[in-house]
Amino acid sequence: MVLLIKSGGAEAIPEWQSLLAELAPDLVVRGWDDPTVAPDRVRYALVWEPNAGRLAQFQNLELIVSSAAGVDHILADATVPRHVPIVRMVTGETGERMADFVTMAAYALSRDLPRIVAAQREQRWDASLTGRMASETTVGIMGLGELGRASATRLAASGFQVIGWARSPKSLDRVQCYVGRGEFDAFLSRSQILVNLLPDTDETRGIVDASLLARLPHGAAIVNAGRGSQLDPAALLAALDTGQVGSAMLDVFDVEPLPANHPLWRHPNVIVTPHVASAVSRRAKARQAAAAIAAHRAGMPVPHLYERERGY
Amino acid sequence: MVLLIKSGGAEAIPEWQSLLAELAPDLVVRGWDDPTVAPDRVRYALVWEPNAGRLAQFQNLELIVSSAAGVDHILADATVPRHVPIVRMVTGETGERMADFVTMAAYALSRDLPRIVAAQREQRWDASLTGRMASETTVGIMGLGELGRASATRLAASGFQVIGWARSPKSLDRVQCYVGRGEFDAFLSRSQILVNLLPDTDETRGIVDASLLARLPHGAAIVNAGRGSQLDPAALLAALDTGQVGSAMLDVFDVEPLPANHPLWRHPNVIVTPHVASAVSRRAKARQAAAAIAAHRAGMPVPHLYERERGY
Ligand SMILES: NC(=O)c1ccc[n+]([C@@H]2O[C@H](COP(=O)([O-])OP(=O)(O)OC[C@H]3O[C@@H](n4cnc5c(N)ncnc54)[C@H](OP(=O)(O)O)[C@@H]3O)[C@@H](O)[C@H]2O)c1
Ligand SMILES: NC(=O)c1ccc[n+]([C@@H]2O[C@H](COP(=O)([O-])OP(=O)(O)OC[C@H]3O[C@@H](n4cnc5c(N)ncnc54)[C@H](OP(=O)(O)O)[C@@H]3O)[C@@H](O)[C@H]2O)c1
Repeated sequence: MVLLIKSGGAEAIPEWQSLLAELAPDLVVRGWDDPTVAPDRVRYALVWEPNAGRLAQFQNLELIVSSAAGVDHILADATVPRHVPIVRMVTGETGERMADFVTMAAYALSRDLPRIVAAQREQRWDASLTGRMASETTVGIMGLGELGRASATRLAASGFQVIGWARSPKSLDRVQCYVGRGEFDAFLSRSQILVNLLPDTDETRGIVDASLLARLPHGAAIVNAGRGSQLDPAALLAALDTGQVGSAMLDVFDVEPLPANHPLWRHPNVIVTPHVASAVSRRAKARQAAAAIAAHRAGMPVPHLYERERGY
Repeated sequence: MVLLIKSGGAEAIPEWQSLLAELAPDLVVRGWDDPTVAPDRVRYALVWEPNAGRLAQFQNLELIVSSAAGVDHILADATVPRHVPIVRMVTGETGERMADFVTMAAYALSRDLPRIVAAQREQRWDASLTGRMASETTVGIMGLGELGRASATRLAASGFQVIGWARSPKSLDRVQCYVGRGEFDAFLSRSQILVNLLPDTDETRGIVDASLLARLPHGAAIVNAGRGSQLDPAALLAALDTGQVGSAMLDVFDVEPLPANHPLWRHPNVIVTPHVASAVSRRAKARQAAAAIAAHRAGMPVPHLYERERGY
């Protein structure tokens, strides 16, 4: 029973093999391009951005484990067999690291850190950059899944006012939740810092556009830790120029790495982070992959399955 | 009864006057350099960096209100009459804003934000800058006064491991406290992020020196939000070069504004903030000053008095 891995490149395979030798000794762990693997022996795949057409070659594939919480990088290949379940990578670390990142971003944006850092670049001391208190700052989180909930809870514990938005009703301690398109405007109009943690779906693609940005309070800040496909960079740059958006911290981009000539790199009110909001260790990922495969083999329910009907 | 003010410059006087007209209508509020004020009518002074010799001119001075939590900027004038009590500026906002700043700094340093921002300056995408989780990071706070305690409590709520150090024993929820010089090394050896929130005294001046930095865990990060006089910039730069110190966020400096040619401005692993860690609003300061003066006049205990014997 072969588990084929495409995550971290060829140089990561020995590490995956040694981690999984402990966790799932009966799995044969092989690299994505290993020519010695017979396609019909591949039962499981752990992947990030699989090349189009390749997963469809394995007739006996039973389970696809995404190496990330999102599965858009797998669905981008239209030939991936629809009957094979896809597991999202949600480890104990995933929510914790994302909560760390989002809370860092909320503090940094409420305290004008992008402008402070831009001033530092020019050796300019500007003592007027005092920002606002967390307790007087409302953070709105789009998407209250594993990551949105962990982030909302942490932000509230850290002293922010927190509101959230999802498709279905939620009850979260200290977080006022808004539901669906009908309550979207009310949610946006209060979000002084808007955090995107939605999955990439037909409905969420391009959601952070000029019209959304116009509905935020003047001078709002943006955190994108979902997917680059969800934010229109031209609309963001325009809103930064008018002051409708005050600043942003962006972790994900349409094209990654963000091309060197992209204007977002150089904008004084923007901090660019290199898709590290929730970079989980290989150890945690191996543990989660082994557990998902074990549950699947035992005929038990596999947690964090992608649901095709709802698109995430 | 005149209250003389030196805080925010001449242009701030109208705002102080209108704030205090509400809060203490019987006080006559005047600017520091107002030539119409008879020296013997001055009973109170609200000051930041009073010029040497001036406070000594007011024989009827009863109370000095510091416009900041620290009083070093007043004690720097050796002629300030020793019998006049000095009140530190500690408002409700002071601790809250400092806790916001210190928690932002701890998140930013645990997530390698200085290096991420330095990479951004060169349009360089470095996905290896994943940092460490808050829950696996120990923050050590030097000084557990108003500001240290507020910061420690917030850091613990935000998921960090927190330890603290003060002169006298403390009991703080979720914060292990170390006391005095005897327990200093044990405290330092655990502090992966060291936060300085000590007051400037004969004992604390220059405390963050080469010897202290050498006793931290390798790669530790430094947050200075106390006073510039407490940190030796040359020792910090040397420790950054060897990697003994990994990064720093510095808010206070020996000379402020930090001179344009200072190497700290340009160090890729250092974020410089312009003494804004706890910049309290004039409204909150006016409220606190009025309350201190009222308590003094009523013969009631005045909170947050500077104690000359202990030096803070
Ligand atoms: N930057 C990074 O390092 C990084 C790391 C990991 C993940 N991510 C991104 O974060 C995303 C979220 O991860 P997750 O594990 O939290 O996902 P999840 O558990 O599937 O949660 C998705 C949330 O979005 C809501 N949602 C989906 N479609 C919606 C719509 N059309 N309108 C309103 N709300 C909608 C869902 O609402 P319901 O609750 O009502 O279903 C749910 O609350 C991932 O898909 C990935 O793109 C980024
Ligand atoms: N960057 C900014 O924006 C900003 C704003 C406000 C204040 N500050 C600085 O922050 C400082 C602290 O303010 P605070 O209101 O928290 O002061 P505080 O209430 O007077 O507390 C001082 C703390 O330091 C401890 N301490 C003093 N000397 C010590 C020594 N030799 N060894 C060990 N511990 C010692 C004290 O120990 P005990 O508890 O045992 O007495 C106390 O816990 C101010 O003095 C000022 O310099 C900076």
